[in-house]
Amino acid sequence: MRTVAFVLYPGITALDLVGPLQVMSVFAAFDPSWRMVVAAETREAVPTDTPLGLAPSHTFEELEGMEAPYAVIVPGGTEPTFAAMADERLLERIRFAARRAEVIGSVCTGSLLLGAAGLLRGRRATTHWAALELLARLEAVPVGERVVQDGPIVTAAGVSAGIDMALALVARLAGEEMARGVQLMIEYDPQPPHGPIDWPSVDRPALAPLVMSTLTTALAGHPRLLERLTS
Amino acid sequence: MRTVAFVLYPGITALDLVGPLQVMSVFAAFDPSWRMVVAAETREAVPTDTPLGLAPSHTFEELEGMEAPYAVIVPGGTEPTFAAMADERLLERIRFAARRAEVIGSVCTGSLLLGAAGLLRGRRATTHWAALELLARLEAVPVGERVVQDGPIVTAAGVSAGIDMALALVARLAGEEMARGVQLMIEYDPQPPHGPIDWPSVDRPALAPLVMSTLTTALAGHPRLLERLTS
Repeated sequence: MRTVAFVLYPGITALDLVGPLQVMSVFAAFDPSWRMVVAAETREAVPTDTPLGLAPSHTFEELEGMEAPYAVIVPGGTEPTFAAMADERLLERIRFAARRAEVIGSVCTGSLLLGAAGLLRGRRATTHWAALELLARLEAVPVGERVVQDGPIVTAAGVSAGIDMALALVARLAGEEMARGVQLMIEYDPQPPHGPIDWPSVDRPALAPLVMSTLTTALAGHPRLLERLTS
Repeated sequence: MRTVAFVLYPGITALDLVGPLQVMSVFAAFDPSWRMVVAAETREAVPTDTPLGLAPSHTFEELEGMEAPYAVIVPGGTEPTFAAMADERLLERIRFAARRAEVIGSVCTGSLLLGAAGLLRGRRATTHWAALELLARLEAVPVGERVVQDGPIVTAAGVSAGIDMALALVARLAGEEMARGVQLMIEYDPQPPHGPIDWPSVDRPALAPLVMSTLTTALAGHPRLLERLTS
């Protein structure tokens, strides 16, 4: 039995977790030698950036008592994820899982937590487009692609990119045919009603002040980390 | 304050709910005159087809005591959703919400619940590709498209199609520019690693026996409904 462990913490962007979890759960239904686990500090439902609470299947302590997970995946979010960069207890949970895993993945700003945990040094990595430059402050090499693989590190761009990342991960674990089978079951044949994002028309700097103020609020009690990220 | 209410019941496919909920929650963050609500029979976390439990923000009773929702959205799933077609209590919750709403939406096999509730008579509608023919048994007109709008009824194809449906709904409620803004925030610029689904190569009839046996198991105690759907 091989395990993929998803890390859950308060305030995450729900789709960051549920997109790849759905992909991986369909994979595990096709191949029951894989098991999916969602771990958090306690078994209580955790709030998200939607009205929904998410209830984990395991505590971190239970996960740490299990056989080493093959992969660990960390979702992102907005202010709560920025704040979690200073949550040494959570970072240590992530480091412990990552030390034992073959694959360490993230979705959206989840890669900032990998970086804060010291897991991205010299690694090519991505995150939500509006936070991409922060990765360099965490000793990673920022790459503006949808899914970036560098050795054991697999990072996805913002929110919905976790679905693409998970399909790439299924292909890595079990081959392209399996990935196509999962894609068919979740009918992932995307047709954004207004087409793909028109990147040349996106005013990227316009969001920078919001990112900066959110970061400043989130890390008000951690001036050294804040300075590292913003100076 | 206008409300979009998502219907939660045990055993759903998590992404059916969380995909559109994430889209609509970002919309509500841009325009706080909209409120998102997730309602279930009780406030307890509800199991899904993943290891995650989903905790609603409201009970159905609380929802029914609120101002009428503008839109109600019903997610789907596999066997538990088929079984829910015979859950008169849930169907009555859906009918009550739908009677008061301007827009009635579904994701994946959620449209089978709309059909079982008598809400699709003569309406063009869609569902997961493997269940499409069942819609005709529920007096709907099955349409093999990703998002189908017919008057107040907006239905999405399987699982991930709920994201496309919700973006179309945002455009309907607040215009295309808003929908593009939400799309950018969730970085929905999909790149399935092995391309779109290659429909001509999909062996559609191959899944029919599985759908039939799942339906037969789910509705074993409801022979008349089963006969209506399968004979």
